[in-house]
Amino acid sequence: MAAKMEEGMNIRRIVLDVDKAISKPAVTELAEAICRVEGVEAVNITVTEIDIETVGFNVTIEGENISYPDLVQAIEHTGAAVHSIDQLVAGSRIVEEIKRGRT
Amino acid sequence: MAAKMEEGMNIRRIVLDVDKAISKPAVTELAEAICRVEGVEAVNITVTEIDIETVGFNVTIEGENISYPDLVQAIEHTGAAVHSIDQLVAGSRIVEEIKRGRT
Amino acid sequence: MAAKMEEGMNIRRIVLDVDKAISKPAVTELAEAICRVEGVEAVNITVTEIDIETVGFNVTIEGENISYPDLVQAIEHTGAAVHSIDQLVAGSRIVEEIKRGRT
Amino acid sequence: MAAKMEEGMNIRRIVLDVDKAISKPAVTELAEAICRVEGVEAVNITVTEIDIETVGFNVTIEGENISYPDLVQAIEHTGAAVHSIDQLVAGSRIVEEIKRGRT
Amino acid sequence: MAAKMEEGMNIRRIVLDVDKAISKPAVTELAEAICRVEGVEAVNITVTEIDIETVGFNVTIEGENISYPDLVQAIEHTGAAVHSIDQLVAGSRIVEEIKRGRT
Amino acid sequence: MAAKMEEGMNIRRIVLDVDKAISKPAVTELAEAICRVEGVEAVNITVTEIDIETVGFNVTIEGENISYPDLVQAIEHTGAAVHSIDQLVAGSRIVEEIKRGRT
Amino acid sequence: MAAKMEEGMNIRRIVLDVDKAISKPAVTELAEAICRVEGVEAVNITVTEIDIETVGFNVTIEGENISYPDLVQAIEHTGAAVHSIDQLVAGSRIVEEIKRGRT
Repeated sequence: MAAKMEEGMNIRRIVLDVDKAISKPAVTELAEAICRVEGVEAVNITVTEIDIETVGFNVTIEGENISYPDLVQAIEHTGAAVHSIDQLVAGSRIVEEIKRGRT
Repeated sequence: MAAKMEEGMNIRRIVLDVDKAISKPAVTELAEAICRVEGVEAVNITVTEIDIETVGFNVTIEGENISYPDLVQAIEHTGAAVHSIDQLVAGSRIVEEIKRGRT
Repeated sequence: MAAKMEEGMNIRRIVLDVDKAISKPAVTELAEAICRVEGVEAVNITVTEIDIETVGFNVTIEGENISYPDLVQAIEHTGAAVHSIDQLVAGSRIVEEIKRGRT
Repeated sequence: MAAKMEEGMNIRRIVLDVDKAISKPAVTELAEAICRVEGVEAVNITVTEIDIETVGFNVTIEGENISYPDLVQAIEHTGAAVHSIDQLVAGSRIVEEIKRGRT
Repeated sequence: MAAKMEEGMNIRRIVLDVDKAISKPAVTELAEAICRVEGVEAVNITVTEIDIETVGFNVTIEGENISYPDLVQAIEHTGAAVHSIDQLVAGSRIVEEIKRGRT
Repeated sequence: MAAKMEEGMNIRRIVLDVDKAISKPAVTELAEAICRVEGVEAVNITVTEIDIETVGFNVTIEGENISYPDLVQAIEHTGAAVHSIDQLVAGSRIVEEIKRGRT
Repeated sequence: MAAKMEEGMNIRRIVLDVDKAISKPAVTELAEAICRVEGVEAVNITVTEIDIETVGFNVTIEGENISYPDLVQAIEHTGAAVHSIDQLVAGSRIVEEIKRGRT
C-alpha cells in the first residue's frame, strides 16, 4: 500500500476503507495517529460494519499537502488495515464527484 | 469502554449508540451528565428504539477537546450503557463523512 | 412523566410524541399552552395520525432554558397526553442528529 | 371548526387540508379570501387530488398573528371546506418539524 | 377557465398543466405569449409527456400581480390548452408548500 | 426544428435531448459549436445513453437572449440531431420548475 | 480518443470514466498526472468498481481552459484507459445539468 509521494500535487482529501480488530486499536488511537500525519487538518471516522472480530470504517481525511504514504503507514502502525482508497481529491481546492448521468 | 485520552488530538464530534432502562435515567439526566463533561458544547439525544424494558438512543455530541473517557464514564454513571461509538471527528474543524461511490 | 429539572443545562429543543382526543383540546389551545412555558420561543405542531377518537402529533419546541417538567405539565393540563420524548437538544447551540452509517 | 383565538400567541404558519367543488369557488377566489384575513402575509395553494366533483388542496399560510378562526371562516365563506389542520407553527420565529428517528 | 381577477391580491407564482399539439404552437411561441402577460417576470416550461399527437408541459410562472385570466387567455390564444392549475402563490412574498406529515 | 425567434423574450436556459453518431462529432466539437451561438454563456453536456452506433446527451444551455433557431442550427451543423426541447426558461431571471403535488 | 482542441471555448469541467489495472498506476500517480495538465485546478478521483484485475473510477476535473486532448494523453500515459467522457462543461461559468422532467 506504500506509494511514492508525488511532488507538486496538493492532496486535500483522502477517503479510505479501513478495518481493525474489535479489541485493538481504539478508535481514538486511530484518530490520534491520523491527526499526527503532516498536512492532516481533520478526520471523520465512521463505523460501517461491526462483525464478530472486526470493525469496518469509512475514514475521510481533509487537509493540505497530505502525505498519502505517511498516512497509510500511520494507520497500519496502529494495527488497523487499509483495504482500499475510495476517493482522492487534489489541487488548489476541493472538487466534489459528479455522478454519472448514464443509465 | 474506558480508553486512554490521547494528547494533542482535538475531538470535535462523537456519535454514540446508547441504551438505558425505560425507567432510569431520565433523558434529561442523561443530557445533563453529558453537558457537564469538559469540552462538550452541545448534545442531541434522539430515540431510535423503544422496547419493553429499554430505550435506544443515537447520541451526537459536539465541542472542543472532548474527553472521550470522561464522556463514557459520565454516561455510564447515570446507569445508561454505551454500546458502540459510531462516529468520531477530530482536528482543527469538523469534516463530514464522504460516502463510498462503489457499488 | 414529571422529571426534576436539572440545573446548569440549557435545553434548546424538545421533540415530543403527543396524543389528544379529537374533540379536545383544540390545536390552537395546545400551541397556546406550550408557548406560555418559560423558555419556549417557537413550537411546530404537526399532525401525524388521525384516528376515530384521537389525533397524534409530532411537537417540536425550540427555545432557551426550556423547563421540561413545566412543558409536560402544561401539555397534560390541556387534556393532551405526552407519549414519549423523541429528541432532546441541550448546550450552547443546537446540534443536529448524525445518523448511523452502519448497515 | 371555529375556535376561540387565544391571546398572547403569535401564529406564524398554518397548513390546512381543504376541499372544494370543481366548479366553485375558483382557486383565485380562495387565495383572495385567505389573503384578506388579518395577519396573513402569503399563501400557497397546491392541488393534491382532482376527483370527479371535488378538488383537494394543501394550503400553506404564513404571516404574523394569524387569526385561526377568521381564517377558517374566510375559507368556508367561499364555499370550500376545511377538513383538518395539518400543521400549526407559533412563537417568535418559525421552527420546522423534526421528524422522528424511531423505527 | 376565465376567472374574474380579484382586487387586492398579489399573485406571485402560478403552476399550470398545459397541453399542445405536437406541431403547434412552438415552445418558444408559448413562452413568448406568457412573457408578454402583465406582471410575468419569468417562465419555466418543462416537458412532462410526449405522445403521438400532443405534448404535455408543467409551466411555472413567477412575477408580481400576475393576471390569472390574462395568462390563461394568452396561453389559449396560442392554441395550447390549460388543463388545470396546480399551484397558486399569492401575498407579499413566495411561501413554499409544506407537505403533510400524516401517514 | 427551425423556429422563428420571437422578439421581446429573453431566453435564459434551454435543455435539449441531443443524439450523435459515436464517431462524429466529438463532444468538444459539439460544445464549441454551442458556445459560439450568440447569447450562450455556458453549456453542460451530459451523456445519458451509449448505444452501439449513437450517443445520447442531455444538453443544458444558459445565457442571455439565446437564439433558439441559431442554437438548433449550430448543433445540427456539427452532424448531431436535436430530438426534443425538454425545458425552456425565459424572462428577467431563471425560475425553476415546481413539480406537481398531485398524486 | 485524441481530439483537436477547439479555439475560443473555455472547458471548465470534464467527467471521465477511467479504468486501470489493480497494480498500476497508483491512484496518486493518476492524480499527479492530471494535476500537471494545463488549466486543471482540482481533481476528484472516486472508485466506482473493484474487479479482480481492474479498478474503475469516476474522475471529475475542474479548471479553466482545460485542454481535453492533453488530459486524455496524460491519463493514458500513466497506463490507465479513458473509456468515455460523461460530462463536459464549457463557457464563462459552470452550469449544472437539469435532469429531464419527462416520464
